[in-house]
Amino acid sequence: MRHVSIIGIGAGDPEQVTVQAIRAMNAVDVFFVISKGGDTDDLVALRREILQRYVEGDGYRTVEVVDPPRARSADAHRAVVDDWRQRRADQWERLIGDELADGQRGAFLVWGDPAIYDSTLGVIDDVLARGNVAFEHDVIPGISSVQDLAARHRIGLNQVGGTIRITPGRRLAEQFADGEDVVVMLDAKLAFARIDDPDAEIYWGAYIGSPDQILISGRLADVKDEIVRVRAQARERKGWIFDTYLVRRPAGG
Amino acid sequence: MRHVSIIGIGAGDPEQVTVQAIRAMNAVDVFFVISKGGDTDDLVALRREILQRYVEGDGYRTVEVVDPPRARSADAHRAVVDDWRQRRADQWERLIGDELADGQRGAFLVWGDPAIYDSTLGVIDDVLARGNVAFEHDVIPGISSVQDLAARHRIGLNQVGGTIRITPGRRLAEQFADGEDVVVMLDAKLAFARIDDPDAEIYWGAYIGSPDQILISGRLADVKDEIVRVRAQARERKGWIFDTYLVRRPAGG
Ligand SMILES: C[S@@+](CC[C@H](N)C(=O)[O-])C[C@H]1O[C@@H](n2cnc3c(N)ncnc32)[C@H](O)[C@@H]1O
Ligand SMILES: C[S@@+](CC[C@H](N)C(=O)[O-])C[C@H]1O[C@@H](n2cnc3c(N)ncnc32)[C@H](O)[C@@H]1O
Repeated sequence: MRHVSIIGIGAGDPEQVTVQAIRAMNAVDVFFVISKGGDTDDLVALRREILQRYVEGDGYRTVEVVDPPRARSADAHRAVVDDWRQRRADQWERLIGDELADGQRGAFLVWGDPAIYDSTLGVIDDVLARGNVAFEHDVIPGISSVQDLAARHRIGLNQVGGTIRITPGRRLAEQFADGEDVVVMLDAKLAFARIDDPDAEIYWGAYIGSPDQILISGRLADVKDEIVRVRAQARERKGWIFDTYLVRRPAGG
Repeated sequence: MRHVSIIGIGAGDPEQVTVQAIRAMNAVDVFFVISKGGDTDDLVALRREILQRYVEGDGYRTVEVVDPPRARSADAHRAVVDDWRQRRADQWERLIGDELADGQRGAFLVWGDPAIYDSTLGVIDDVLARGNVAFEHDVIPGISSVQDLAARHRIGLNQVGGTIRITPGRRLAEQFADGEDVVVMLDAKLAFARIDDPDAEIYWGAYIGSPDQILISGRLADVKDEIVRVRAQARERKGWIFDTYLVRRPAGG
């Protein structure tokens, strides 16, 4: 039987890898490295660094594949994602079938935590459902960017008795309107800048855990413009950005 | 200056500690171990095991303190928590002031992730706000039981385009009514058993990551009774239980 591990590797700080992940990586024969084929190859670099640091010996191979391009379309969001998943399933089915011999272990290294806004598990389920290539799989959690955001700002994600909500940028307004605190990921459109609550506070971070990390926090109305400016500059400088933030109403507010 | 680290240590599996946490633990002079003074001393045992496994040499002391008892009262939830926090702040102020010399490092080892339903950071903020004892502090994220729940069930916490909600048991009904998936922690009252959605699925886990781990999943209506039964038996056998679960509506449902 083939085996595939889906391993969370943290969101930028190579020290935020767990002992469990290190042990799993050391048992792997073939690492599948998915590259977006563009500027975010910094992300591929972190994966390489982690392998170099933590895997002993060189008893493994690395197979890099370029992710199928994903059409960017605001409507038909669901259909676009489904189509992309299908093309990835084709690709991964071939990878697992062709690159792993019987009894060998393959692995996907996943940014942050595999359970949080990541499509790897969905594609794996699709490949399994087709039934063309058989394999066992397991999942190893990783520190998510959301957790490192909270840690670097030294805050909790929930207030006493409150809930934790994590949502993509385009759903911030709707989720925040309910009166709950909200963590936002995947926000290309600066959804925070359109929140107009005078009490709201923001805890923002970009490239968290990496040497480029930037943190800004304060009353949203006060720091909004600064975040927009700093974010644009950073993005310009590096060619890409990863940022996440918590918007909350202070206790009693 | 004194220094205090708040270190997440995972939620039951000693291998789910990060390299960052191990490095931090190795720099600590005094570990403050908070015990609930009751059956959950299994939790203190995990902390001890982690120190034994990962800290080299014996250049540290451990100070165990019994948490002030917390009144259990359904109403006045907020007031009860506030009072408890204050008594903890008194206790921790003394701990940090008396047990740490200038230049020394103390640490609190926090179950799971310090940002997720944990009061440590709140108490630290209270102690700092009083201004009686000065110290620097930092926070190191840990794998949360929510993440390990998802990993052991090999599922994502969000569906495509969906949000992630994490909430205490008594808020499940209200949060699930919105049509969103919900992860529940801190549920002594089996809130899942009162959800009546015929489409709902549940992914439940107890003592996740430990040798006692139990996982059950399926259509909520089908496995509800089994979970209630297995949970009661496990709790009886061990004297305490830690369980968490995701309730979701399947895609398209
Ligand atoms: C596809 S999601 C993957 C999330 C990942 N599974 C995790 O647990 O962090 C990508 C989004 O995660 C957030 N993100 C990931 N790494 C980050 C970092 N180092 N700093 C800030 N945000 C980050 C950003 O919001 C980004 O748009
Ligand atoms: C006070 S909260 C602390 C949560 C912790 N900070 C975390 O990130 O997992 C305690 C709750 O966490 C959940 N929990 C913690 N450890 C668990 C485990 N090993 N298995 C299942 N649930 C767990 C249970 O819902 C429990 O009531």
